[in-house]
Amino acid sequence: MKEGKKGNLSYIFDPASIAVIGASKQTMKWGFIVPANIVAGGWKGELYPINPHEEEILSRKVYRSIKEVPGDVDLAVVTVPAQKVVPLVRECVEKGVKGCIVISGGFSETGEDGALLEKELLSVVSSSEMRLVGPNTMGVFSAPNSLHCLMPPVRPLKGKIAFAAQSGNLGTQMLSLGSALGVGFSRFVSIGNEADLKWADYIEYFGNDPQTGVILLYMEGVRDARKFIEVASRTSSKKPIVVKKAGRTKSGAKAAKSHSAALAADEVIFDGVIKQTGMVEVDTTEEMLDVAKAFAVLPLPKGKRVGVLTWGGGWGVVAADALEQHGLELVELPEETLKELDEFLPPYWSRGNPVDLVGTLDLSQHFRCSEILARCPVVDAVISLGTMGATTSFQSFVEDSPALEKELELSAGFDAAASEEFVRQLAATEEAYRNEVVKLVNETNKPIVVVAFPSPEDGGSRLASHSDVVVYPSPERGAKALAALYEYKKYLQSLE
Amino acid sequence: MKEGKKGNLSYIFDPASIAVIGASKQTMKWGFIVPANIVAGGWKGELYPINPHEEEILSRKVYRSIKEVPGDVDLAVVTVPAQKVVPLVRECVEKGVKGCIVISGGFSETGEDGALLEKELLSVVSSSEMRLVGPNTMGVFSAPNSLHCLMPPVRPLKGKIAFAAQSGNLGTQMLSLGSALGVGFSRFVSIGNEADLKWADYIEYFGNDPQTGVILLYMEGVRDARKFIEVASRTSSKKPIVVKKAGRTKSGAKAAKSHSAALAADEVIFDGVIKQTGMVEVDTTEEMLDVAKAFAVLPLPKGKRVGVLTWGGGWGVVAADALEQHGLELVELPEETLKELDEFLPPYWSRGNPVDLVGTLDLSQHFRCSEILARCPVVDAVISLGTMGATTSFQSFVEDSPALEKELELSAGFDAAASEEFVRQLAATEEAYRNEVVKLVNETNKPIVVVAFPSPEDGGSRLASHSDVVVYPSPERGAKALAALYEYKKYLQSLE
Repeated sequence: MKEGKKGNLSYIFDPASIAVIGASKQTMKWGFIVPANIVAGGWKGELYPINPHEEEILSRKVYRSIKEVPGDVDLAVVTVPAQKVVPLVRECVEKGVKGCIVISGGFSETGEDGALLEKELLSVVSSSEMRLVGPNTMGVFSAPNSLHCLMPPVRPLKGKIAFAAQSGNLGTQMLSLGSALGVGFSRFVSIGNEADLKWADYIEYFGNDPQTGVILLYMEGVRDARKFIEVASRTSSKKPIVVKKAGRTKSGAKAAKSHSAALAADEVIFDGVIKQTGMVEVDTTEEMLDVAKAFAVLPLPKGKRVGVLTWGGGWGVVAADALEQHGLELVELPEETLKELDEFLPPYWSRGNPVDLVGTLDLSQHFRCSEILARCPVVDAVISLGTMGATTSFQSFVEDSPALEKELELSAGFDAAASEEFVRQLAATEEAYRNEVVKLVNETNKPIVVVAFPSPEDGGSRLASHSDVVVYPSPERGAKALAALYEYKKYLQSLE
Repeated sequence: MKEGKKGNLSYIFDPASIAVIGASKQTMKWGFIVPANIVAGGWKGELYPINPHEEEILSRKVYRSIKEVPGDVDLAVVTVPAQKVVPLVRECVEKGVKGCIVISGGFSETGEDGALLEKELLSVVSSSEMRLVGPNTMGVFSAPNSLHCLMPPVRPLKGKIAFAAQSGNLGTQMLSLGSALGVGFSRFVSIGNEADLKWADYIEYFGNDPQTGVILLYMEGVRDARKFIEVASRTSSKKPIVVKKAGRTKSGAKAAKSHSAALAADEVIFDGVIKQTGMVEVDTTEEMLDVAKAFAVLPLPKGKRVGVLTWGGGWGVVAADALEQHGLELVELPEETLKELDEFLPPYWSRGNPVDLVGTLDLSQHFRCSEILARCPVVDAVISLGTMGATTSFQSFVEDSPALEKELELSAGFDAAASEEFVRQLAATEEAYRNEVVKLVNETNKPIVVVAFPSPEDGGSRLASHSDVVVYPSPERGAKALAALYEYKKYLQSLE
């Protein structure tokens, strides 16, 4: 166990031992589900169920109280009803427990009585070395030690995004959505009522966490604005902070007040906070994952000049619009680059940016174009549209081929085997293209964003699961993510 | 075969017979792929391959020229190189063919020589009863007769959306995306260079088509603005027209000019066109399908007052923001409705809109809330967040249970069978909830929008495939779609 000063959140995210206060044998109680999640998730530390009336839970010896646990306890997780929480947390303090997560609801979020109870809880914690998550939290997730100390049984992908959410439900569902979309997390915390630990504490911890490359926040309100701004400013000079601020409208602020009871910041004031702290604000919940993933995987662009490779003119037009709308530039390619492309593109190609491959099935041309665009000195970033996912539209053709074959029984015209082979080759080429994108990003240190459309077969998950490539389902979302990278780059430059 | 006046597009979308001029035995030629698509897609008419050098293609007797075909030909599909097109199309005219699709590229989109060729082509067509799609088109799709006269082998879902696209690539990929997202189409046309048939003609045809409930346009520019505005205005008074206008920025307009060579409308002028015609403009390609599906499936809301049902406060806040941002109203619920909800919601519920079910696993409460909201007299539309898709987060828990069981071998604490049964029940309840939504929409004639998050298992496709319910992956997209319905409703009211 690490020795640490007050405020060391590693006891919460990297505990060597956990006591569950209110552990239960009843499978539909949180006192069972949370420790079962921890066990099933693969965490390797010492787990102590605490319950005065049981002998054994989850194959572990049960202790009647935390004080009876023989060794040190890094983290206590409390699932008992609100009225019983305070004395049990006091015992944790007396035991010398370093961190505490109060899952239980029924505190300030429910009204005045609950607020009083929360005040009492805080006074117990404040006088100690122990730090408190919650109350009214869905828990924490920590990838390095596979700690799934969460109410819902989600299994997030591991990655570089640390995520703090002021809504446990939204937060844990985003973790789950991340698994569907290939977005991985290093840490997660449902911040709950922030009786003790607040936004600033989590941001500070994530900022110093070597496992974390990007910080993602779902925020409804701020309780300690001054400290928040100070820590967020300091942190975002070394790591990007992506924030979705909910409650930006009157209706939203009202709903937020009823939900998290945190002081919703005035919209105008929050604009100032964004500017002052250099946080990157996103407009929608979908953009939270889109943008966080871009930061987690890609280098920042040096400027705003984008080269677009497209497999169809329409998508190129849509991308051009989206780039300009988000403040990026569809850069004019130098004559030298055009000549390089002339060498292998058909004579009628558009000779400009977007580079339109006009539906060619020869994917080697996509490789050459991608490389030429990525290495072009005036190009700071590349969007590649339609090359990945190219196989799926051919899949259905081959799937139809049995029917077709029957139809053609006497005809020598259709060679189904050749078509299947063609699709296999396309799939192999697609995998190779993915590797090429990774290689080009590493060699040129420029971001390459891939756009591929979800197919009926996989709903996009097959493509998304390649976590080393950033894949979006539309050019607009790709352009938006790229713009976020550029916005942060400009912020960093403004600090120089 | 129908007798019709010039301009009867049913010969193109509902032909009884098709001749493919340039039919081929080579499987990688469009002269094979297009008719093979038609055959594999299940169209039941007479197919005549035309090729002077073959005897049999796709089990059909080959004719040396269209003039040798014994019976009438409704539609000719031309895949030969541009230079050979004009004389062959002249033969079609002489044969009395009613409709013609020139797939071949190499016309006005390639420069001056191509433009001259296109002019020549048009003069042949103009002097006849025949109408022409393209040239430079990827073809048409028609659901009622399963006609897949398309270059790419896509198999769209059948539905009520007629879609015209000024980019074959984007258009056909959207059809394919629709299959992934549960969005079905009645007709599709890749309009190509519009030498003869133009926007107005297709809109007019779709407007009168009983199979079509919504018209969707991907538009880069307009060649005949006056007629377009006249027909679009007339049509949108009876059917919604959803339009994505690309080339709205300088970069986009420039890219569009190089792509479709259509006159890109000035952005300011196009704003006027939207206003004048009552078309519903969407901002992104994703919104094209989101909004078109809402129109295809849901009734229009009578007003802007929305009731929100949520399974977690955070999503409610996000929905509240999105509603206000899109001009909708998170309506205050009358005391009577609150009292109805009091009867079964926990005492600490928020007593307001959004109605927050605070993660309850008792889905019968979701049913009751949905019904109360839908029947509430001040509610014009409902958004239901998180009930559908609820099972997925529990799936992983059960999937983990073998590992857990092993861990618990000696413990009686964990009943995996009971958990599996629980998930089965949730899944059955989810299906029942879907039916309940359909029933409530029919009974109340109010739109209900469902939000469910894609899961790692199905990427969202399982939920989306229920084509009688409108499901979006985020509250923001649900609110946007609802706002589009309301915008159109207001337009219709303005005509009264």
